[in-house]
Amino acid sequence: MDTYGAPLRDMRFILDHLVGIDSIAALPGCEAAEPELVYSILEEADKFAAGVLAPINKSGDLQGCRLDGDRVVVPYGWQEAWDQFVAGGWLGLSLPEQYGGQGLPKALWAPVWEMWFSANLAFTMLPQLTLGQTEALDVAADEAMKALYLPRIVSGEWACNMSLTEPQAGSDLAAVRMRAEAAADGSYRLFGQKIFISYGDHELTDNIVHLVLARLPDAPAGIKGISLFLVPKFLVNADGSLGAKNDVRAVSLEHKMGIHGSPTCTMAYGDQGGAVGYLVGELNRGIEYMFVMMNEARFGVSLHGVALAERAYQMALRYANERSQGKVAGEAGRPIAGHPDVKRQLLAMRTRIFAMRALVYPAAAWFDQARHHPSPEAAARSRRYIDLLMPVLKGWNTETGNLVCDDAIQVFGGMGFVEETGVAQHYRDGRVTRIYEGTTGIQANDLVSRKILRENGATLRELVAEIRADVAALADVRELAGHAKALAANVDDLERATDFLLANGSSDPATVQAAAVPFLHLAGLVCAGWRVAQAARAAQGGLAAAASAGAAAATGAAGVAGVAAAAGAAGAAESAPAGAPGAGAEDAGYLRGVLALASFWFATYAPQVRGHADTVAASACVGLAPDTALWA
Amino acid sequence: MDTYGAPLRDMRFILDHLVGIDSIAALPGCEAAEPELVYSILEEADKFAAGVLAPINKSGDLQGCRLDGDRVVVPYGWQEAWDQFVAGGWLGLSLPEQYGGQGLPKALWAPVWEMWFSANLAFTMLPQLTLGQTEALDVAADEAMKALYLPRIVSGEWACNMSLTEPQAGSDLAAVRMRAEAAADGSYRLFGQKIFISYGDHELTDNIVHLVLARLPDAPAGIKGISLFLVPKFLVNADGSLGAKNDVRAVSLEHKMGIHGSPTCTMAYGDQGGAVGYLVGELNRGIEYMFVMMNEARFGVSLHGVALAERAYQMALRYANERSQGKVAGEAGRPIAGHPDVKRQLLAMRTRIFAMRALVYPAAAWFDQARHHPSPEAAARSRRYIDLLMPVLKGWNTETGNLVCDDAIQVFGGMGFVEETGVAQHYRDGRVTRIYEGTTGIQANDLVSRKILRENGATLRELVAEIRADVAALADVRELAGHAKALAANVDDLERATDFLLANGSSDPATVQAAAVPFLHLAGLVCAGWRVAQAARAAQGGLAAAASAGAAAATGAAGVAGVAAAAGAAGAAESAPAGAPGAGAEDAGYLRGVLALASFWFATYAPQVRGHADTVAASACVGLAPDTALWA
Repeated sequence: MDTYGAPLRDMRFILDHLVGIDSIAALPGCEAAEPELVYSILEEADKFAAGVLAPINKSGDLQGCRLDGDRVVVPYGWQEAWDQFVAGGWLGLSLPEQYGGQGLPKALWAPVWEMWFSANLAFTMLPQLTLGQTEALDVAADEAMKALYLPRIVSGEWACNMSLTEPQAGSDLAAVRMRAEAAADGSYRLFGQKIFISYGDHELTDNIVHLVLARLPDAPAGIKGISLFLVPKFLVNADGSLGAKNDVRAVSLEHKMGIHGSPTCTMAYGDQGGAVGYLVGELNRGIEYMFVMMNEARFGVSLHGVALAERAYQMALRYANERSQGKVAGEAGRPIAGHPDVKRQLLAMRTRIFAMRALVYPAAAWFDQARHHPSPEAAARSRRYIDLLMPVLKGWNTETGNLVCDDAIQVFGGMGFVEETGVAQHYRDGRVTRIYEGTTGIQANDLVSRKILRENGATLRELVAEIRADVAALADVRELAGHAKALAANVDDLERATDFLLANGSSDPATVQAAAVPFLHLAGLVCAGWRVAQAARAAQGGLAAAASAGAAAATGAAGVAGVAAAAGAAGAAESAPAGAPGAGAEDAGYLRGVLALASFWFATYAPQVRGHADTVAASACVGLAPDTALWA
Repeated sequence: MDTYGAPLRDMRFILDHLVGIDSIAALPGCEAAEPELVYSILEEADKFAAGVLAPINKSGDLQGCRLDGDRVVVPYGWQEAWDQFVAGGWLGLSLPEQYGGQGLPKALWAPVWEMWFSANLAFTMLPQLTLGQTEALDVAADEAMKALYLPRIVSGEWACNMSLTEPQAGSDLAAVRMRAEAAADGSYRLFGQKIFISYGDHELTDNIVHLVLARLPDAPAGIKGISLFLVPKFLVNADGSLGAKNDVRAVSLEHKMGIHGSPTCTMAYGDQGGAVGYLVGELNRGIEYMFVMMNEARFGVSLHGVALAERAYQMALRYANERSQGKVAGEAGRPIAGHPDVKRQLLAMRTRIFAMRALVYPAAAWFDQARHHPSPEAAARSRRYIDLLMPVLKGWNTETGNLVCDDAIQVFGGMGFVEETGVAQHYRDGRVTRIYEGTTGIQANDLVSRKILRENGATLRELVAEIRADVAALADVRELAGHAKALAANVDDLERATDFLLANGSSDPATVQAAAVPFLHLAGLVCAGWRVAQAARAAQGGLAAAASAGAAAATGAAGVAGVAAAAGAAGAAESAPAGAPGAGAEDAGYLRGVLALASFWFATYAPQVRGHADTVAASACVGLAPDTALWA
């Protein structure tokens, strides 16, 4: 029941038509990412996800982690999976070549890591920590630290974690109290406790590199007095060999609703005289460096949303095609997928998954463009877009992903509530994705306050203009004119809500903050709807090209390549081998499926936009409510 | 952290102003339910819920149930709770007086049982089974069976369950295969397996009465061949004493995501020659009798929705008032409840809870009116309303309740995902409420097909006319004219969607079925919004009366009773003791709170109605989607 296969078809479609993977391969420094290599990597990743990671996902949930004396014991199979993951080169896929990685673009990274997260989120949280830490050290550390640590981190010899949270400092890192004292040798001694540290300890690797937020006794108050320290589990000699155990240890593990395979540790520093730590970058710039890690992590979590939804959907679809109950169109013994309401649920799930993926892959490409595009203007625009939409990607994709995991349980009915089928795990695991690396409320506040108000909505208006241009193009496609109209109305609502934020941002900040989460939902729906509309246009273009090629073939004028080539020429279909039996028919079927998802989107999700815009505009009611509204 | 106190203030407000509890007490046969008695019963129930049931809720979740050989072992404390529950007369509260119950009205039953469900859902599922079984036996059993069983069931001496589901027969009971063979003595022998049987076995009572669906070998196919059998765990002698153990036993328990304290059993019948069963009522009418139980159960589950939401809300509110994080209006150290987004979440939860409760208590009163109203027309109308809205009550309240439990976790942030705080339990427990006793999809199908199409929308139109009359009254209250306009638009959308169903019901049943769940959400929002609007009118009336009494007092013309009496005269405020210190001020504060909830409703939930109506109207897209839309 709980097997996994990557949705390669959707991945390719989105990479081809929404990302333009060939345009990414054309960027200087991204030459390796030529489409055929990308697709063969995806196929290999699928095998690894399905063959190595997925089979230990449920057992990991059942076994969980435990603290055995000082040792954190992770589930059976984790060690083998880690070793194979590293040996297969998957850890280094997107990491810098100068430290031993392969430096492949983010646009490839996104579908590959989506597979890992689908197959086994609890496991994959470990390698994910390597990505953010590598980025932060690359940005902030001095050359000696980079040379000593990064090759061993990128190779997977040593693992990483991110040690931020303390009991009184969750969303508010300004409240961090962990104390760092300067030692005579230029290093520091750290004292204090961190909580909620994913993979804070384990024995999967020879060493663990903790990046820890702490403050010096004389540091300024608040976030401007927080520094970032590198604390190795085992001290590292100058030649990279390992020395004594450092004064840091896991003192307890959390009992959580999900991700049981990921040890969530309370870590004690300095119980025996002080944990040896090394300053990363400059003093008191810790929050800035932390955000490098955090942004990397948030982008990853946006993939958690789509990944768990995909896994849960695959289970629900399989169940709906195996389970028989009641009569379907008057006939007994046919699977429940044929019941209109079950089909509606399946379409609801798949449409949302498609939309999340269509939203996040092109955003991954923005990273590549920001880093590699030869035009400084184009690079800067991509950077602006990713900065603006990061909280939407994280917030909306995880909110939406949770809804899909919830739908999957509903398709199973009573069998969804019992644990044996496994679908409940994705629902439980996924619940944390709206919390960790910043709750949806924190994302929404970031979006509204830091990303929109601070620049008076400039980037958002730039994006809106781009969406409007696509609306105009869409309106020219006769079959999709209805979608164009609906999307235009959605964009109007987005602008109306943005105007409300800008008009009230300085005079009534509390109302604007109360409007933030509804605004995030609105922004997510509009941006995802934009991508769905783009997909529909590509699909419609492919079908039109195929039809005209078919018509030409019928009159004896067709080229040899048939449907696929014709569709390819229109820039809007799969690159199935020309002339492969049935390839044309299969393509057309797939493309019609994409159009059906777009129809479902504009029937079900696009109509929700107006309500969110109305809620944003009425947000003053929150501030006006007396305390007596909250208790009876 | 996880204590419980009943929301007595809200309960009273809704009973006073939306139910009209005095009008229920005026019904013949309901005389005992005079308001002061009702409120003193609620206070006693609160003590029992808070003192006996709530304290063993979390421990029950942690311990769960287990099968020890043939014995089903329930959590620690269950036995004492059951004994006290029965001894306190709580089981018999609403049960017929002729069998030893107290026969109190459903309008009282609803708030009392809401408390049990809030305090401990897993435990309360057991006494809840008694209610449905009593009703079914009362309707269907012969006098001898009633005389032998019902007094012992109503007294709590024996427990009950409802044995319907089989592996191939979940939502579709027509597929029941359990075999019943006639024996020479007029009894039957049952053979087969039932699954998902809540409290299928345990040792809390001396005996357990199973009501079991089964079919005779020569019975007609489908639901018209299913009969209902009474199968006692221990055979019962003519004098009510217990005989031999019957041939029925629990063979396994499910491992579930929640309600761990409720044993969900797989039951084997007839392994040793046949379980002795007795026909209830007439042969082949089992589904009809089952629906008596099922309707009782569904109404109870509609309370599960509000009850778990209330419990989770109380935890979230307490946490938000204790937890400090970040600056609130520039000041550190103040609780997070002051953050606009957290306040928004709390208002979102409380508004939904208020709306669910305001929807369900007046529906409970419909039961009383249907049974006791001296006017046959009024009684029949109440019966029509409860029949029409039962699927909405069950479906919408559980959907909405789940959302509130989800919000509660979000308020806790990371502490919501770890199990120690206890808020995750309500989220896990609550997930099943949208599944058992008919999924939301089943409810929606019932609503659309059996309740609306079958009578061409007659009762719905009758209800809509009633709502429109309230809209007109609301429009006359200057402060609430905006709500009146919004509610009127919502009702328009409900009618538009209903017209769509009626127009397509026979020509395109698949599209109408695909529209059913969106329609159920729409109907729930409109009906709940109607009740919220009624509450706002009562609150506004109370405030206006208090203000004019205050003005009169200031000019020396006030009567002795002050604010409370003035408000009472307007039929729209709490009956606080006249002249009690601060009572007037407290009342006004409460009433302003109700108005704030209404404002939040019309800012946030009412605007969602149009989207659902648009979705209903666009439901043909489900049937049109090719299979290729469902897989990549």
